[in-house]
Amino acid sequence: MLLPQFSQDHVPNTSSATHTRLAPFSQQVKRAAKMPGTIQHSVVTEVPGPQSKAAANKLDSFFDSRAVHFVVDYEKSSGNFIVDVDGNRYLDVYSQIASIPVGYNNPALISAAQSSEMVSALVNRPAIGNFPSSDWHDILKDGLLRVAPMGLNHIFTAQSGSEANELAFKASFMLYRRKERGVGVEWSDEEIASCLNNAKPGSPELAVLSFTNSFHGRGFGSLSTTRSKAVHKLNIPSFKWPQGPFPSLKYPLDSYVEENAAEERRCLAEVERLITTWHCPVVALIVEPIQSEGGDNHASSAFFQGVRELTQKHGVVMIVDEVQTGFGATGTFWAHQHWNLTSPPDIVTFSKKAQTAGYFFGDRMLIPDKAYRQFNTWIGDPARVVLSKAVIGEILDKRLVEQCARVGDILYAELEKLAQKYPEYIQNLRGKGYGTYLSFDTKDSAALVATLKRRGVNIGTCGIRTVRLRPMLIFEEKHGEFLFPTQHAT
Amino acid sequence: MLLPQFSQDHVPNTSSATHTRLAPFSQQVKRAAKMPGTIQHSVVTEVPGPQSKAAANKLDSFFDSRAVHFVVDYEKSSGNFIVDVDGNRYLDVYSQIASIPVGYNNPALISAAQSSEMVSALVNRPAIGNFPSSDWHDILKDGLLRVAPMGLNHIFTAQSGSEANELAFKASFMLYRRKERGVGVEWSDEEIASCLNNAKPGSPELAVLSFTNSFHGRGFGSLSTTRSKAVHKLNIPSFKWPQGPFPSLKYPLDSYVEENAAEERRCLAEVERLITTWHCPVVALIVEPIQSEGGDNHASSAFFQGVRELTQKHGVVMIVDEVQTGFGATGTFWAHQHWNLTSPPDIVTFSKKAQTAGYFFGDRMLIPDKAYRQFNTWIGDPARVVLSKAVIGEILDKRLVEQCARVGDILYAELEKLAQKYPEYIQNLRGKGYGTYLSFDTKDSAALVATLKRRGVNIGTCGIRTVRLRPMLIFEEKHGEFLFPTQHAT
Repeated sequence: MLLPQFSQDHVPNTSSATHTRLAPFSQQVKRAAKMPGTIQHSVVTEVPGPQSKAAANKLDSFFDSRAVHFVVDYEKSSGNFIVDVDGNRYLDVYSQIASIPVGYNNPALISAAQSSEMVSALVNRPAIGNFPSSDWHDILKDGLLRVAPMGLNHIFTAQSGSEANELAFKASFMLYRRKERGVGVEWSDEEIASCLNNAKPGSPELAVLSFTNSFHGRGFGSLSTTRSKAVHKLNIPSFKWPQGPFPSLKYPLDSYVEENAAEERRCLAEVERLITTWHCPVVALIVEPIQSEGGDNHASSAFFQGVRELTQKHGVVMIVDEVQTGFGATGTFWAHQHWNLTSPPDIVTFSKKAQTAGYFFGDRMLIPDKAYRQFNTWIGDPARVVLSKAVIGEILDKRLVEQCARVGDILYAELEKLAQKYPEYIQNLRGKGYGTYLSFDTKDSAALVATLKRRGVNIGTCGIRTVRLRPMLIFEEKHGEFLFPTQHAT
Repeated sequence: MLLPQFSQDHVPNTSSATHTRLAPFSQQVKRAAKMPGTIQHSVVTEVPGPQSKAAANKLDSFFDSRAVHFVVDYEKSSGNFIVDVDGNRYLDVYSQIASIPVGYNNPALISAAQSSEMVSALVNRPAIGNFPSSDWHDILKDGLLRVAPMGLNHIFTAQSGSEANELAFKASFMLYRRKERGVGVEWSDEEIASCLNNAKPGSPELAVLSFTNSFHGRGFGSLSTTRSKAVHKLNIPSFKWPQGPFPSLKYPLDSYVEENAAEERRCLAEVERLITTWHCPVVALIVEPIQSEGGDNHASSAFFQGVRELTQKHGVVMIVDEVQTGFGATGTFWAHQHWNLTSPPDIVTFSKKAQTAGYFFGDRMLIPDKAYRQFNTWIGDPARVVLSKAVIGEILDKRLVEQCARVGDILYAELEKLAQKYPEYIQNLRGKGYGTYLSFDTKDSAALVATLKRRGVNIGTCGIRTVRLRPMLIFEEKHGEFLFPTQHAT
């Protein structure tokens, strides 16, 4: 699809490969053909291969392995390429469910992993809220705070996107009741006694609104806001919280301007109706900039501006879940930067490519009235926060956000050509202007993904019939060549 | 309190201290007196000291620091001793809320932290369920599975005690509905559609029973089972799940044999009444072997045997929350080993000293009917699981569980003497036979803990007026000397 641009960095960063690097191009290709594992991608067995199958079966004796795609040799994996235990080497545009930021065995991350700061964070794991390390301030300041979304200058660290979202909900609930009670007014005896019994008024009925097809995690609170698939939710008790409609846009966008605008207005009206008529106060609203697990569903900036207006009008905390969209892939560091909001969201949650998790916020009223209310033993993992600092360093130093924007535009254009050529395989192409965060519908996404795996591309699905691209931030123009070999659709 | 047994390992493991080690005993003491930081414990400022206060204030500009006790120099901390940024050195029997297993800067853990296995786990963080590493099987087998509770040969990894408990609840709910639906019977369309809307029958009303004063975490599901303090629960919506009475025993146990047995019978009867009469099915019961955050409340083995009988009789999944009690401190690796159950609990959850988290189980029916139901992106953190392997190696190699049993017995005997001497300071001493997992009530626990901090002992409270000992597993007889200097009560 793109012009072939073979180059050094298709060769993994191992000592034997280092020699290869020095060889002239023609020799490289020749040698690579003879040496499995050193060419750009090469699948020599069925997928998963016999070694992967054997390893997964062995693991399954004590660890559920039914979802294993293949078992990985991470030592041999490098940059954009993942190598399995059968020696198959894939261009990885799934990236551990969108969570590898800057490539396998990234040298800067290895360096961070070997630092004395990391060793101490690992072996002396603190209860950060009680006994923070002397360097905790700087680890945050030189890391996560460098990328704090505009207007959000406070942070709470966590360990997963689910946890981050639930902490954001808790902050919202505590804020709501604090305002309702009156700032500075003490808790009543009735509140104190009733909350221990999970009863009102101490444990009130308050709600978080989320959208159809959203995914916000799998804890009991976050799962109550997840609406993507039954496999996530079936049999699990949930809070009776409202579900607003997320716009269902038609593609190509240019051809459906009016209809899509009307659809977004309809959704906004329904969200406002739910906020104002739900049987209990709707305290927070959570939304993904691009609904990822739910099928890579987009909405316009105008829609999100409308959401911001509604939440401000009704005093609802607006939580933007950037667990999957954050950290650069959309061509801006945070996807919500695309919206040009007149005031920032109240809370932005993150995880995945950050290699840690947590939430940013601006309003100090979101800090609860007393200590120990938003608290837990570890409050995140400083080892992972140290790593995130290195990730952020790489992203900013190497201008990887700008790279994603640039490469994404080219990729989109190429995919658009393919879509015209093979309309039965590529429909509803989306993500234009959103970096490499691209996706399309296809008639049988599982089959297409299986085919691509056999051809050396590790790629994932989402929603019902969507194939999503989630390359790492180090994905370059030249890697596009290997993404969709034109023969795939034949 | 114990006879002074000054010894080498009161000296921190730094290069300057290494020289000190070689000096004869009298010289050591003399030198130590002149060199702050090398003596066993030494508090030279108020607590927190000026440097701690300044550091916490600085941190507070973007990270809530109201719960900070003091800011720590982890590089200088070693073994049982923690050093703050003011140069104060404390014997640490709080251990990061009971979560440091084998001492600060433990050499075996440092070695694990520097291993290539760790570096890869850090920089190539996998979505373990999809793309496990080739060594994931062995990391588990040579680590966590070595200490799997008897009868529980499966594991699911997680990142916190809260998460582990919620995963256990989800497994229980899925099991219940699977049995109710009939094994092998497919999900109905109605179930699939309704669960996405948080409605019945897909999202059923099912309950988890927990006990008064319990603490099981802070997620929306785990918090619904936490009953310890209002500060944890106030303003947060919760599930309407039942709360059984946990026995309120009288001390000394010898003097109240009949009354305590009657109290436990009363509690068991009430638990059975709740299970059989609650407005929805009680699917699981969760219990701590010793209620830790709730005040170090104990019950007899007979009580827990009764709980096991009740749960089996009524088909309720019994979840033993060993997040704080697990990993040796009670003188057995798992506290529930004290109970001599005739059949193992269904699920045992762990975290804290494990340095990772998760749950063990035995019944394969607790693995859901389909893949991706019990799932999330990371499914724990292999870096932390690698570290847990080293922790387990240390515990088993150095027979630290046996050591806890032995040292705990001596500590208990000494505390008993102190209790007789200072009954106004030490009441309801408990934990006899439970290793170093000791505690007592006192009239003003915050004041006593503050006094002890100023005298060089970092110790914690729980419940309303309880002081709890949570030394690391490497706490030895000789450290007892420094625990309660006899002048503390004067």
